[in-house]
Amino acid sequence: MTIGDELLIGQVVDTNSAWMGQQLNAIGLRVHQITSVSDNEQHILDALFEASKRSSLVLITGGLGPTKDDITKKTLCKYFNVGMRFDGSAYENVARIFRERGREVTETNRSQAEVPENCITLNNQRGTAPGMWFEKEGVVYVSMPGVPTEMKGLMEHEVLPRLSQRFNVPPVLHRTILTQGIGESMLSDMLEGWEAALPAHMKLAYLPAAGMVRLRITAAGKLPELLRMELAHEEEKLLQIINEYVFGFDNDRLEAIVGKLLTAAGNTLSTAESCTGGYIAHRVTAIPGSSAYFKGSIISYSNDIKTSLLDVPKEMLEKHGAVSESVVRCMAEQVRIKLRTDYSIAASGIAGPTGATDEKPLGLVWIAVSGPQGTETRKLQLGTGRERVIHETALYALNLLRHIMMKVQSG
Amino acid sequence: MTIGDELLIGQVVDTNSAWMGQQLNAIGLRVHQITSVSDNEQHILDALFEASKRSSLVLITGGLGPTKDDITKKTLCKYFNVGMRFDGSAYENVARIFRERGREVTETNRSQAEVPENCITLNNQRGTAPGMWFEKEGVVYVSMPGVPTEMKGLMEHEVLPRLSQRFNVPPVLHRTILTQGIGESMLSDMLEGWEAALPAHMKLAYLPAAGMVRLRITAAGKLPELLRMELAHEEEKLLQIINEYVFGFDNDRLEAIVGKLLTAAGNTLSTAESCTGGYIAHRVTAIPGSSAYFKGSIISYSNDIKTSLLDVPKEMLEKHGAVSESVVRCMAEQVRIKLRTDYSIAASGIAGPTGATDEKPLGLVWIAVSGPQGTETRKLQLGTGRERVIHETALYALNLLRHIMMKVQSG
Repeated sequence: MTIGDELLIGQVVDTNSAWMGQQLNAIGLRVHQITSVSDNEQHILDALFEASKRSSLVLITGGLGPTKDDITKKTLCKYFNVGMRFDGSAYENVARIFRERGREVTETNRSQAEVPENCITLNNQRGTAPGMWFEKEGVVYVSMPGVPTEMKGLMEHEVLPRLSQRFNVPPVLHRTILTQGIGESMLSDMLEGWEAALPAHMKLAYLPAAGMVRLRITAAGKLPELLRMELAHEEEKLLQIINEYVFGFDNDRLEAIVGKLLTAAGNTLSTAESCTGGYIAHRVTAIPGSSAYFKGSIISYSNDIKTSLLDVPKEMLEKHGAVSESVVRCMAEQVRIKLRTDYSIAASGIAGPTGATDEKPLGLVWIAVSGPQGTETRKLQLGTGRERVIHETALYALNLLRHIMMKVQSG
Repeated sequence: MTIGDELLIGQVVDTNSAWMGQQLNAIGLRVHQITSVSDNEQHILDALFEASKRSSLVLITGGLGPTKDDITKKTLCKYFNVGMRFDGSAYENVARIFRERGREVTETNRSQAEVPENCITLNNQRGTAPGMWFEKEGVVYVSMPGVPTEMKGLMEHEVLPRLSQRFNVPPVLHRTILTQGIGESMLSDMLEGWEAALPAHMKLAYLPAAGMVRLRITAAGKLPELLRMELAHEEEKLLQIINEYVFGFDNDRLEAIVGKLLTAAGNTLSTAESCTGGYIAHRVTAIPGSSAYFKGSIISYSNDIKTSLLDVPKEMLEKHGAVSESVVRCMAEQVRIKLRTDYSIAASGIAGPTGATDEKPLGLVWIAVSGPQGTETRKLQLGTGRERVIHETALYALNLLRHIMMKVQSG
């Protein structure tokens, strides 16, 4: 249950619920429903009551700030029909945080140590609002701040260990297969026979996302060891059918897979980016430890930078235009030389919403990967939507690098 | 109501609900609750029934794909107690999409034109599953695909215009003030008096986010013109108290504000990035039209690129280290010269999780902005969390550029 008007008017996307769903699943707890409600006492009371009928565990985030619009604690008092008490250890935590920032505890913040009488407080290392654990009529309620880092710290250090002890449930196993370069309905046609032959306690789901389709196999309700074997067996059969489209599994990120390949080969990478404007480099460097293989980029957003920093000949730009095979090939080869890396990626395209011509429509993108074996290029036609074009270009380019590196490794 | 196991196990974050909340709010409709449920018939039926008791409008996304795990249509038939019919216009749309991709309509996809008898179909320009509009006992239900671009197209072209006609409600107005460089409780202390004096039909909410705090004023239930005036009046009073921390309003993005300042001044920008790895350039180029002022970047992730492409002296790197005021200053000044731009941004820091030393802890970042008036630097201490450090560094750096450009413009 996430509390806050900001969720309902759409100012904030609820990312807490998805993260909690993942963590709960991993310890064998299944989320039955996610509910977002407003900062309104009656609404919160109703939602708590309904949730307690459906589930034996209700996780609540939000509405614990020190300000006037945060009413979760008062409402929990009303729900459990109890008063407030001052919690010494929660106050110690508030005082510690203010001390570390070299500030005095304000009166507003002192009130964060006041909690409903019937709760156990859980220490929030990352913020001033304590977590709170309640039990009533066999249902566990846990209230946490809505700020994601604080909620995550509380879940990891306090809530999940307690839940593992308190509940003891059979596991649900998931395996997700990540594909690229093929649509959902085409995959579905290829997998029809395999899917029909799945045992009853196993289930397939298609999860399309920008530039890829994820396939999730779920298996439930048996001995974990047996389940794990069955899942592996079905996965093997599936891979035989669609192997060429599979680039990874579960929470694999393409940039992490590419990073592992580069690390294993002791190779380095650079990028030369036009339409992606640094996004490929950003994806690569979002991975911890990427400094071991990523040396840098030249972002040549304007044509004169393509000429001055990447030595793309002026005549080539005039003849073929910046969005062309010859220019993207030149960008990749030049950045590889200038940054002295084993591999390089280049991209040049029309992300939109303007810049299209009759011959070069919105979403036309050329990508290139250069390496010890030479340079490969691809023409992409990604349609409209600036953000989507940038995002998908990065995926296609990283996947092209992955394909080339796998070919090299397999001889 | 969003439907899909992938939401409950946390594989997908529900971004649809927030977007719909924004759009509905803009036409005066208030979202009462967001509910995410599993791909389970009974659960969907229960949730539909409960929603119909609470609200006069139920928007549903998800579970409309052509594959076996998509059960929304069947379940809606059961809920309304009707059969299926074949919809000619929905089929035409499926055929058109396949034609455009040069493919034949598969049997699986033909089934997308089958819909519950009692619905009006809504044309989905961006995909094969039609939108569906139902009315029963005074409640409107709209079912849409879960793929965000398809849902958005349907909402914009079909659903929102129909809802504006069907419902006629007094507006709720929101104004959000975006602040940076000050915490939530400090703001709350400064605004205490102002908040206490707000009229009863106006409300303030604090929305902390990475690197900023947003303040949202909500006003409801009066004549729109009067409400707008009152809101503007309260905003003016608020700005007098906290003006120095305010960088924008509502959905303003710092990179768009900076883009407008650069455009107005006819100035250009470049970046030299180390720890942010291209993220600042990505933020800047995510804005349509940024090619008018953004020329490019040098991403010098490794030290030898700092030397070879940005002429940072080796001795400086050895003496002060890459994360230092002198190096970040040199990076900003060099990229500004080499890319011939009016302004430049540079960042160098320790994003983690490794790389920290006793003198240089995780989250230590130096940023610099260079321009016609010289170079300004700032030392940031952003703590742990690689993603957060990269994100906040970009915000601080863009805001420093904004401050400097505003100073120049005001004389």
